[in-house]
Amino acid sequence: MQNVRIVLVGLGNLGRRFCETAAAKADLLAERYGLRLTLVGAADSRGAAHNPAGLDMAKVSAIKEAGGTVSSYPDAGRADMDAIALVKAAEADILLEASPVNLDAGAEPGLTCIRTAMHKGWHVVTPNKGPLVTAFAELHALAREKSVAFRYDGTVAGGLPALNVGCRDLRGADVLVLEAVPNLVTGYVMDLLASGLTWDEAIAKALASGALESPPEWDLDGWDAAAKLVILANAILGCDAKLDDVARAGVSSVSVADLIAARQRGEKYRLLAKAALQDDGTYALSALPTRIGPQHPLGFLGSRQMGIVYTTDIYGTITFAIEELEPVPSAMTMLRDLLDIYVDDASTLVI
Amino acid sequence: MQNVRIVLVGLGNLGRRFCETAAAKADLLAERYGLRLTLVGAADSRGAAHNPAGLDMAKVSAIKEAGGTVSSYPDAGRADMDAIALVKAAEADILLEASPVNLDAGAEPGLTCIRTAMHKGWHVVTPNKGPLVTAFAELHALAREKSVAFRYDGTVAGGLPALNVGCRDLRGADVLVLEAVPNLVTGYVMDLLASGLTWDEAIAKALASGALESPPEWDLDGWDAAAKLVILANAILGCDAKLDDVARAGVSSVSVADLIAARQRGEKYRLLAKAALQDDGTYALSALPTRIGPQHPLGFLGSRQMGIVYTTDIYGTITFAIEELEPVPSAMTMLRDLLDIYVDDASTLVI
Repeated sequence: MQNVRIVLVGLGNLGRRFCETAAAKADLLAERYGLRLTLVGAADSRGAAHNPAGLDMAKVSAIKEAGGTVSSYPDAGRADMDAIALVKAAEADILLEASPVNLDAGAEPGLTCIRTAMHKGWHVVTPNKGPLVTAFAELHALAREKSVAFRYDGTVAGGLPALNVGCRDLRGADVLVLEAVPNLVTGYVMDLLASGLTWDEAIAKALASGALESPPEWDLDGWDAAAKLVILANAILGCDAKLDDVARAGVSSVSVADLIAARQRGEKYRLLAKAALQDDGTYALSALPTRIGPQHPLGFLGSRQMGIVYTTDIYGTITFAIEELEPVPSAMTMLRDLLDIYVDDASTLVI
Repeated sequence: MQNVRIVLVGLGNLGRRFCETAAAKADLLAERYGLRLTLVGAADSRGAAHNPAGLDMAKVSAIKEAGGTVSSYPDAGRADMDAIALVKAAEADILLEASPVNLDAGAEPGLTCIRTAMHKGWHVVTPNKGPLVTAFAELHALAREKSVAFRYDGTVAGGLPALNVGCRDLRGADVLVLEAVPNLVTGYVMDLLASGLTWDEAIAKALASGALESPPEWDLDGWDAAAKLVILANAILGCDAKLDDVARAGVSSVSVADLIAARQRGEKYRLLAKAALQDDGTYALSALPTRIGPQHPLGFLGSRQMGIVYTTDIYGTITFAIEELEPVPSAMTMLRDLLDIYVDDASTLVI
């Protein structure tokens, strides 16, 4: 039985769900892969808990579900310790960095946590787009230098293994076009507008449902889709793209009349992230509201589905979609990435 | 630069396309992955060619495209050497076994070639379902014993990485239902019947198009779909299934009246391969013509698309589809598998 010591930073929707679900999977992980996960530290925005012998993941989840802070964890809780201090203090094998995207603050505290962990020789898994968008090349170079794994499948399209497939299963190919609907709430809002709601009504409904989070501009103005495209382009297409390299427009760039007219023709708008190979060998990157008809490779996507399509030279046109009714799949990309690091499949692939 | 010595058995549609496309990709493989592929031996049903210094892959492809046999390859051709003798005689690093499915002959010569290669310490990649269906557990045990890689992503749904995703990206999950449309020609024939063609007309058209190969019963009676389901179930779901464990029916089990009625309702029939988790923890396996409406997760599949959907406990419902207009994607699964073995991505996943 191999023991994997985990530090988890961020206990919002993703971090909390990871704790809850990983705890429920403990027997399966032991039996199927010979792995035991030990959560030696966890941090939220109000403090941390640290215990080298392990925190009870179900208890951490319960504290957060009740609206508390992990710094109140019996005995191990520390209100005077933040995430960065926890990563510095702990001894662990892997960092799961699940703090919220925070580009205004230089992607902190995630970026410093990741750098610190890699310097300590820990593997790093993160569903947080901020550090990737801010320091993609630097973090990959550091991971190579320190011989640690760096995985971030959860940054794009939730639980869909879009990055894993792109990086592994398209090896040897040239990707001619990559198109993705990597963000649910923009499509939801455009569908509401197309159905006749006013802008204020649509935004209020999206906020009330929890689909739209604060600050809403991050989603509505296309920043989220653009950030995901930057990660896809850098990881899969070998680009060195920044957010500014993406031609970007938000939901409000389409008139409500156009949204309604599209619906009447059986079409719909989605905020489409697209990378298209140009004659000079570079990719044109865009994240724009785009009218999608039934014949488009992603035209089949329902209102609760994200998707991606790779048009390649040697592997045909491959389309993926995920229906994610709650945040568990996004959270469990951290388990997927962790298992990809620790499960030895050198000889065969049997699950 | 790492040199990978290849023996390729089978030079039909897949083997020939592999040679042609891998030759065209030589510079890319060297530049992107530091790999040089050297084809030290190749065999078809009429003989072999063997040259430790390497055969010209483009020339092998050209010989086959002209209807010839590789045993006529200048100097290296050997009409007196069959595939098994070639594998025994050659020194190589990896076997690509692309001979046709031949269950009547005990999956030979593929099965013996694979066993021989593993005993010699070679990695094995195959898109041939025969050896997998016949000896799944034995070949995996042998690969583990010999510490060689054994990959077969091309056995299911052509160029779609259905097995890779299932085995790697669903780790830690319980798959509740797996549904696949892994065979194109059965859907094509049922669509033709639904459009008013007689059985004889539909079969003749499918044969003329090349979509239906001899013996047609392999596809039409559901054996191909059942074989693919056996491989999916054993590789991803941990089953120990045989062909006889699959409840199977062929295209002709549906009346033409039902096919026409479905089309009139906006539905269609597909030969659906399905594994459903039962209360006792085992999977019910079936490969049956199934009416698929627009609401089915695979209802969007076009007539030229294969697809698969995994309904899981922790990763949501993930759907994949591929449009494959010619056999190159299926052939290049051998490159995908080879690169997965030889490209070191321990630290990062960048393509």
